[in-house]
Amino acid sequence: MSFSEYFPIWNKLTVEHQRRILDVTDFQKVKSGTILHDGSPECLGMILVRSGQLRAYLLSEEGREVTITRFFEMDICLFTAACVMPSMQFDIFIEAEKDTEFWVIPACMIGNLMEESLAIANYSRDLISSHFSELMWLMEQIMWRSFDKRLAKFLLEEAALEGTNSLRITHEKIANHMGTAREVVTRMLRYFQGEGMVKLTRGSVDLVDTKKLNALRGD
Amino acid sequence: MSFSEYFPIWNKLTVEHQRRILDVTDFQKVKSGTILHDGSPECLGMILVRSGQLRAYLLSEEGREVTITRFFEMDICLFTAACVMPSMQFDIFIEAEKDTEFWVIPACMIGNLMEESLAIANYSRDLISSHFSELMWLMEQIMWRSFDKRLAKFLLEEAALEGTNSLRITHEKIANHMGTAREVVTRMLRYFQGEGMVKLTRGSVDLVDTKKLNALRGD
Repeated sequence: MSFSEYFPIWNKLTVEHQRRILDVTDFQKVKSGTILHDGSPECLGMILVRSGQLRAYLLSEEGREVTITRFFEMDICLFTAACVMPSMQFDIFIEAEKDTEFWVIPACMIGNLMEESLAIANYSRDLISSHFSELMWLMEQIMWRSFDKRLAKFLLEEAALEGTNSLRITHEKIANHMGTAREVVTRMLRYFQGEGMVKLTRGSVDLVDTKKLNALRGD
Repeated sequence: MSFSEYFPIWNKLTVEHQRRILDVTDFQKVKSGTILHDGSPECLGMILVRSGQLRAYLLSEEGREVTITRFFEMDICLFTAACVMPSMQFDIFIEAEKDTEFWVIPACMIGNLMEESLAIANYSRDLISSHFSELMWLMEQIMWRSFDKRLAKFLLEEAALEGTNSLRITHEKIANHMGTAREVVTRMLRYFQGEGMVKLTRGSVDLVDTKKLNALRGD
């Protein structure tokens, strides 16, 4: 599949805009662990994921993290084009969680296109609106949902994402995803183990009773 | 001042769009305490505040609240037009915190205009982006900032907003704004009183050492 088949609103663009995008779009491959955006004022541009997985997260001064959203195949990331959107001011980090292939439309081109193309202006509004909705949801989870439910949900989602109930993940890493301390995660995982929901071994968490985890998760 | 002088991007609109907006725009006055939007699927439309103050907040199942943002004179609220933006899906409440006068452009008209007008499409993207940025900031505060700093900041902002260091506000109300329990607020306010920063009387909080509160707030 080519760039134009991956780009969600390609057929809504004029031929002229399509040509200008193709002229400047760059294809890149990065290794798992690569930081694509580090909250600094410079930015890459709009990213369209071809394969792999990106993660957007916040980082506290003390080094704690919380995952805001993830980008998969055919997803578009606008956070990496924040430099051309003066109203998008926040320090977000984007890292490749897996080896990732993507296209980049440079930031300046995106800035120009948003001023010229109704399709791109509305599409970018939709993207930001859906991130906003996700963030509202996440905030509700963090503020009001008890941590046991959040952790059950996280483990089940990871299992679905990885296609296995045997997760190779450290407590530290889970804590980073959930914006909490490692000790909090370890304590809750031990409780889950005591309840027969998971089995803990060094560097991995096996989900042994997904039915019970699903009941705990509650939605 | 008339509607067109309050509307931020009026001069970027075509005469035809201006006419269509004026044809359907409605002027309303509501009393302090009125709920304009209650998270239900129906919605009013885009609100342009002429005077007064609106508050957008989340409400948990247990009745806890947290303030997301506020709208003042000349601000535009798009949350009340979420029904025409499928990507904006969340349950937010909007209430008038003071007697408020505003114009409403009905939701269906806003939906049409976003599809037709580049100026409106981009302006609405900017609005949502800035709310997104605010929400990111708020989430960082909630997750990573100690509660004493957040409370000092809240009190100082309220004082600036009300134009007085003698705040008529209950601990319950502060707790609702900050998404926490009343006991947590009371405990911290008593600590502040012990430190000589505030003086507590029934139904009010007097800021007696704003210098110290500012130092605590830290930014």
